[in-house]
Amino acid sequence: MNAAILTIGQEILIGQIVDTNSAWISQQLNGLGIDVKQILSIPDESEVIYSSINQLLNTHDIVITTGGLGPTSDDITKPVLCKLFNCGLVSHGPTLNHIKEIFTKRGLPVTELNIHQADVPESCDVLMNSAGTAPGMWFKRNNSVLISLPGVPFEMKRIFKEHIMQRLAGLDGRKVILHRTILTFGLPESFLAEKISDWERDLPQNISLAYLPNHGIIRLRLSCTGKNNEEVESLVKHQIEKLSLIIPDNIYGFDDDTLEQVVGKLLKETQSTLSVAESCTGGTVAQLITSIPGASQYFRGGVVAYSNMLKMNLLSVDKDAIEKHGVVSKEVVEEMAINSCRIMDSDYAIAISGIAGPDGGTSEKPVGTVWIAVAKHEKCVAKRFNFSDSREVNIARSAYNALNMLRLFIQQKNL
Amino acid sequence: MNAAILTIGQEILIGQIVDTNSAWISQQLNGLGIDVKQILSIPDESEVIYSSINQLLNTHDIVITTGGLGPTSDDITKPVLCKLFNCGLVSHGPTLNHIKEIFTKRGLPVTELNIHQADVPESCDVLMNSAGTAPGMWFKRNNSVLISLPGVPFEMKRIFKEHIMQRLAGLDGRKVILHRTILTFGLPESFLAEKISDWERDLPQNISLAYLPNHGIIRLRLSCTGKNNEEVESLVKHQIEKLSLIIPDNIYGFDDDTLEQVVGKLLKETQSTLSVAESCTGGTVAQLITSIPGASQYFRGGVVAYSNMLKMNLLSVDKDAIEKHGVVSKEVVEEMAINSCRIMDSDYAIAISGIAGPDGGTSEKPVGTVWIAVAKHEKCVAKRFNFSDSREVNIARSAYNALNMLRLFIQQKNL
Repeated sequence: MNAAILTIGQEILIGQIVDTNSAWISQQLNGLGIDVKQILSIPDESEVIYSSINQLLNTHDIVITTGGLGPTSDDITKPVLCKLFNCGLVSHGPTLNHIKEIFTKRGLPVTELNIHQADVPESCDVLMNSAGTAPGMWFKRNNSVLISLPGVPFEMKRIFKEHIMQRLAGLDGRKVILHRTILTFGLPESFLAEKISDWERDLPQNISLAYLPNHGIIRLRLSCTGKNNEEVESLVKHQIEKLSLIIPDNIYGFDDDTLEQVVGKLLKETQSTLSVAESCTGGTVAQLITSIPGASQYFRGGVVAYSNMLKMNLLSVDKDAIEKHGVVSKEVVEEMAINSCRIMDSDYAIAISGIAGPDGGTSEKPVGTVWIAVAKHEKCVAKRFNFSDSREVNIARSAYNALNMLRLFIQQKNL
Repeated sequence: MNAAILTIGQEILIGQIVDTNSAWISQQLNGLGIDVKQILSIPDESEVIYSSINQLLNTHDIVITTGGLGPTSDDITKPVLCKLFNCGLVSHGPTLNHIKEIFTKRGLPVTELNIHQADVPESCDVLMNSAGTAPGMWFKRNNSVLISLPGVPFEMKRIFKEHIMQRLAGLDGRKVILHRTILTFGLPESFLAEKISDWERDLPQNISLAYLPNHGIIRLRLSCTGKNNEEVESLVKHQIEKLSLIIPDNIYGFDDDTLEQVVGKLLKETQSTLSVAESCTGGTVAQLITSIPGASQYFRGGVVAYSNMLKMNLLSVDKDAIEKHGVVSKEVVEEMAINSCRIMDSDYAIAISGIAGPDGGTSEKPVGTVWIAVAKHEKCVAKRFNFSDSREVNIARSAYNALNMLRLFIQQKNL
């Protein structure tokens, strides 16, 4: 069973927004054993929308479109759907009530534009949108299904989870495939590839491998097809066990795990607490850690000591140390980490000081020079990194390396 | 002159990565007056890559592909290009030297896999990759151009800027089009649409309008075609002036401006400094502000006071106030803001305290309840917001609303 995703909106083709919907939908479909064969983005033009949907429906079992369902004049998907399915628009009662409720709750009047949000092509099954005003729609044509969803990501996701997931899971013809992603940190792509080349060569024919590098994280994706779930689960499990013996310290998680989740889990398991002292990363580490629900169980908080004054006043860093060694130095970053534990009453701390760029580099400490320390009370380890000349890359790499150092430090492994 | 973008990689179709390359490339092409007609994502399968490139080259002037050029076994784009252009692979001397240099500099050996990174199809012009090891390639077929680029975003961008931009700008047949995006905050989409409906109706035929909402930000994109740059510039300028009279306080910037940039600019212009005190946003505001190069000129730093203890110890919030009003309250958030100015020696401060969820909500203060304050020394304004039930949305909306409140506060406008 295969699928295509069609995203509609000129904003994608002029690069004004990044299409995150397709990735999310692809994940869900893959999890259900439905192969996504292509993702296509097209402009808000009736003829293009019509012919694209028509063609994709002829060649795929499932076509999912997003976008073009809003209340404004550039949203033209619904009339095209009427033409495709040879029907008119009708007002959907439950959706209209839902829209009225939303606006009444906010104390706002219900406008003409809002009322038209409840209009849907007569031949569809309406998928209620509990997160917004534009409903989703489910159509059938011959043996294919067309699902049309709004483009606003959290509305699209809500409809998918509440109405689509289960309905797709009930369809026959889905294949048995297991994707498992092994998350590694600490080895550049070509070194990792050489280190695991024997293991890779010996993979069975029905398992394929892909490398996905990003900011120091390299994800290894195994895709295994087979007769049934038990078979693919067991085949993949065996390969992961083999790989774990080759790069035990580099594997930090699987699939959607993130370093911030893994670190959070380790802190919870050891009933420890964390604080952070950030300079060049400017709050990125704190932001990553607090993106995880329940972080308040182990995260005390942090200081974004962007100015030297704050490093001294809030983190008690010694003025002489800054003057003697420079603010980007082993000595300062170690003080930041150790003092964080004390001042913010945490068991562990991360401290980062570096030159993110584009300015501030010197010949001795060029842009991309970053010192990172992790501490447990008075015990502290610091490392120097030389990243890149890009501010964005330097901030991201610093944050992820800091989280990875903390991971290894908590697990008492070599940094 | 039209273009298509083809992204190659199974990782996109299973939703493992979000394709950010296409949006970036689209922006560049649009800026050059080249229309992107479609963006297509396909798997790493030789036949699909071959037929997709072949078909796109028949129907577009320019085809840009990304992905499949890495050193590992799942990267198969180069053999397909050899077949398409009927030639073999040759080693490119300058690229090989560049690769050797990179590894020598890092003190690492040059592996067999790395050496093969320098192999390119004989018939292409090589586009050197100063940011990595896989070079870009420029091919011609009849009147069409094929450009093949690596998928790692910062390498792709580097090659594009250094080798492609200028070469595309030299091509004939590019059209005159101007996209201008007006960035607004503070009005929901349907209210904005009603408020500006007369202006929208009166837009000239050669100007089209699109609405792009995200986390409270609504972007209005004007696209204008015309005879020459002067004409479209002047037409668009006139419409923006008309719009500015209708929603003066809602417009915060244009095109790629961000709220964090705009706030940074206002602080620089008024020679003021800023600090932040964040609870539920966990460092997101600090992270946004420090993502802007040069932020150290106006940003002192921040406290991520995730625990109540840190609110008291680092931000001197009164224990009685927390006990009496709760930590998510006007009183506490105002104290946080005013104390931040004093403790971190800044002119302005932002403070945020709320319930991001999924836990911690009560009937009186459900998940999504957020108090935000902005202060200038002792002067302070606070507002209560009721966002959503999604942690991610609550954090993002809180951060952007805080930045927008500060923008209006600095400009002495109504919040």
